[in-house]
Amino acid sequence: MSILFSVIFFVFILHSLLASTEGFVMNYYNSIFYNQTDQHNSLQCNLDLRLIKEIRNYQPIIYSIINRVTKGDFKGLVYEELSNFTDKFGSRQSGTENLEKSINYTMDLLRHYNLENVHGEPCMIPVWIRGKEYAEMITPRNHSLNMLGLGGSISTPPDGITAEALVVNSFDELHERAAEAVGKIIVFNQDYVSYGETVVYRSKGAVEAAKVGGIASLIRSVTAFSLYTPHTGQQGYDKNVKEIPTACITVEDAQMLRRISERGEKIIIHLYMEAHQQQMKMSRNTVGELVGYQEQKKIVLVSGHIDSWDVGQGAMDDGAGAFVSWFSVALLKNLKLQPKRTIRAVLWTAEEQGLIGVQQYIKDHFNELENFDIVMESDEGTFTPEGIEFAGTDSAACIMQEIGKLLTPLNMRKFKVRDSVSSDITMITKYGVPGATLLNKNDRYTWYHHTNADTMTSLDSNDLDKNVAAYAAIAYVIADLSIEIPRENSIF
Amino acid sequence: MSILFSVIFFVFILHSLLASTEGFVMNYYNSIFYNQTDQHNSLQCNLDLRLIKEIRNYQPIIYSIINRVTKGDFKGLVYEELSNFTDKFGSRQSGTENLEKSINYTMDLLRHYNLENVHGEPCMIPVWIRGKEYAEMITPRNHSLNMLGLGGSISTPPDGITAEALVVNSFDELHERAAEAVGKIIVFNQDYVSYGETVVYRSKGAVEAAKVGGIASLIRSVTAFSLYTPHTGQQGYDKNVKEIPTACITVEDAQMLRRISERGEKIIIHLYMEAHQQQMKMSRNTVGELVGYQEQKKIVLVSGHIDSWDVGQGAMDDGAGAFVSWFSVALLKNLKLQPKRTIRAVLWTAEEQGLIGVQQYIKDHFNELENFDIVMESDEGTFTPEGIEFAGTDSAACIMQEIGKLLTPLNMRKFKVRDSVSSDITMITKYGVPGATLLNKNDRYTWYHHTNADTMTSLDSNDLDKNVAAYAAIAYVIADLSIEIPRENSIF
Repeated sequence: MSILFSVIFFVFILHSLLASTEGFVMNYYNSIFYNQTDQHNSLQCNLDLRLIKEIRNYQPIIYSIINRVTKGDFKGLVYEELSNFTDKFGSRQSGTENLEKSINYTMDLLRHYNLENVHGEPCMIPVWIRGKEYAEMITPRNHSLNMLGLGGSISTPPDGITAEALVVNSFDELHERAAEAVGKIIVFNQDYVSYGETVVYRSKGAVEAAKVGGIASLIRSVTAFSLYTPHTGQQGYDKNVKEIPTACITVEDAQMLRRISERGEKIIIHLYMEAHQQQMKMSRNTVGELVGYQEQKKIVLVSGHIDSWDVGQGAMDDGAGAFVSWFSVALLKNLKLQPKRTIRAVLWTAEEQGLIGVQQYIKDHFNELENFDIVMESDEGTFTPEGIEFAGTDSAACIMQEIGKLLTPLNMRKFKVRDSVSSDITMITKYGVPGATLLNKNDRYTWYHHTNADTMTSLDSNDLDKNVAAYAAIAYVIADLSIEIPRENSIF
Repeated sequence: MSILFSVIFFVFILHSLLASTEGFVMNYYNSIFYNQTDQHNSLQCNLDLRLIKEIRNYQPIIYSIINRVTKGDFKGLVYEELSNFTDKFGSRQSGTENLEKSINYTMDLLRHYNLENVHGEPCMIPVWIRGKEYAEMITPRNHSLNMLGLGGSISTPPDGITAEALVVNSFDELHERAAEAVGKIIVFNQDYVSYGETVVYRSKGAVEAAKVGGIASLIRSVTAFSLYTPHTGQQGYDKNVKEIPTACITVEDAQMLRRISERGEKIIIHLYMEAHQQQMKMSRNTVGELVGYQEQKKIVLVSGHIDSWDVGQGAMDDGAGAFVSWFSVALLKNLKLQPKRTIRAVLWTAEEQGLIGVQQYIKDHFNELENFDIVMESDEGTFTPEGIEFAGTDSAACIMQEIGKLLTPLNMRKFKVRDSVSSDITMITKYGVPGATLLNKNDRYTWYHHTNADTMTSLDSNDLDKNVAAYAAIAYVIADLSIEIPRENSIF
């Protein structure tokens, strides 16, 4: 017993002696806390130890942020506010009165949670009306095809389009079989690889179909999994190519049509769509702030978009993203954590029609961009957060990674650098402003995306709380740090 | 080297000597092959070693069955035939001309694959017509509720029903709040526990709602997962309780309605249904055989049901079950494996309306039941097979488990005894006939069940092949064994 005690005592003494040296503290800290997955392509960081220490000194504040929203009286509150919101308004498509009412409601909510300078900033947005629509296979048998017109599509003629289908698995196959395409409805049955790679069939399918003489196009929904679920989304015409009506169908029907066509059977489809564009309308980007105590004009921006497609409730895309963003500012206000610089929540309008709101915002705030320390956005799901995804210089990434280590109590250990992150904020980061979003466990994101299944049921209250904690923590530290996030490699 | 060689030689000699003793062979065999998960509630088996040996002697034949359908020219064929079938006919609801055409087609197919005595056996079946139907929440806002009327439901009055909703989470809550229920549409938002436990809300929700004065009922779909997917299914009225219209809604909407009602907001729903029963029609159970070479009148029955709900394509429920059943007989025919007794494939009609086809079959074959060695059915999914589920006496279960060990090359190692298995055949096993189905990895079964997502996309060709191999193997061994599967504990 006495020998064992001596050994323990010796180790304790040695530990105490070594703990006073900075190097030991750092190594110890790293080994205990920060066994992060290094996903930043071998970024070599050599941060100033004083900066590392400064960042790590925020850990007690980060704990207070995390505890308040994962255990305290803010626990579950963002889910409750978001369900109040989505149950009240449902989907919030650009151009609808409903979207504008939901913006009014949200501004009241931001004021209720004591955000400052709450206001809307006007923005003209496009108005696309879906109207009545349906598609049916009428040969070789009658079968209704579950479908959704794609955003921006034109209508069919009043009697619809009845034509033979050409079913292809890829653009390459379409080009090889171009001679067969004239006068046909082109059905794309592309395999799902990833959202980023596969979505081109949605965004450009109509253009490619029209180039070879197709008179309408039906796209297999872009998703990793389907329960006979059509997924809408924006598509774009090419001004040099004839516009044709275009819609998505389900994975199930696309595969069936392919099987039937591979048997050499003729397929005839009837498509009817009333889709059309209307005159632009006025909407608003919604803004609220936590004003800094020292450098008020320096901005850390957290954001999401408040509009949604006209299906489901826009709970995941992007009600949850918008709400965790402004709610992270509300949480800091409630904790009376006022940083040096200003934290600004922005809820973009008309993201789904092509990042419309943010583009107006840039026009109106162009001279302010140089004051933006970082722009953040949540528009890739609010599932269990696992880390940070960052767009910026290497030296900025090193600082961001160090800040990210403060989130290990949330079990967030990943860090990834990409050329651009999220959706709206890509329009800002292209001017050199650093950008960030959370890396979430979002395997199921595409299952719900742009569908009727985008409801509160897809969300988890505890995950929303963790997202709020993470955005609040990152925003607070960046807004309060002695230095700004660098934009040039040379700064560090 | 010479010492190592001597050791190897010694082990080889010892092995050869021991291998000739039955006990060693059994132990060796067990340890290498049959590390099965014992799921039969500690059933103590003490089978005659000669019987064990007889069963194990079938292993080479079982390999030939498995190889032909998982590697040979039968690989993928059942998926192809089933997709030909479902793509051609789609759903096959009882009472439709389409079901009868699909039965004609299937009989031709059975003949094409050389099944013997192929014929249909007449059966009168009920005809329920869904008609036009919809449901909408009109207060506190307009929101279309995705719904499906439940099988057997009556219609609403021609103007529909517009009434306040009472949302409850359980029958208990309904009874506690019975005073609030009068004149209301009762919405059941029961949690999903398991299909077996939760389906009572679908089958009896309307009766329980009517008992307390409800004028219609909407049931949260019975499923473990939803993408805004309504799940239909049969429900039953009670002759002593007023009949009210009843439908299912999605998990998502049921949860939303509950949240809204918990906020104290009044919900008004408009429900319109044209559902009604029509005069019974003639349908057929489809039969085909592989006639035994010795005891032709002794029967091993493999089955599935050919009818489906009027949504999706009835690919999983139960096109796949029906097809793997008759295809297992086709495989044996093709392999020229003729057992002692007859193997009979039966494709039941009108299972979904309450096991109608099998009940007529029992009436017509009651005296033949004593000749049934075993009845099998696939109606719980055709996902990756993992073992056998059996209903019968302990001594029969011991034999069945031993036969099941022949399926370890398919990685099927589970064995479970239950009071009854599958659907249609429960009507036969209650007369003492042993019954069996496959235990499959069917976690996702309820995701597709009775929905528009029940399509070929939910199925995997390799899994179908394995199901065919397993049914063919079990049917062949039982039909060829020196003994019949016992019905009484005392036999062994």
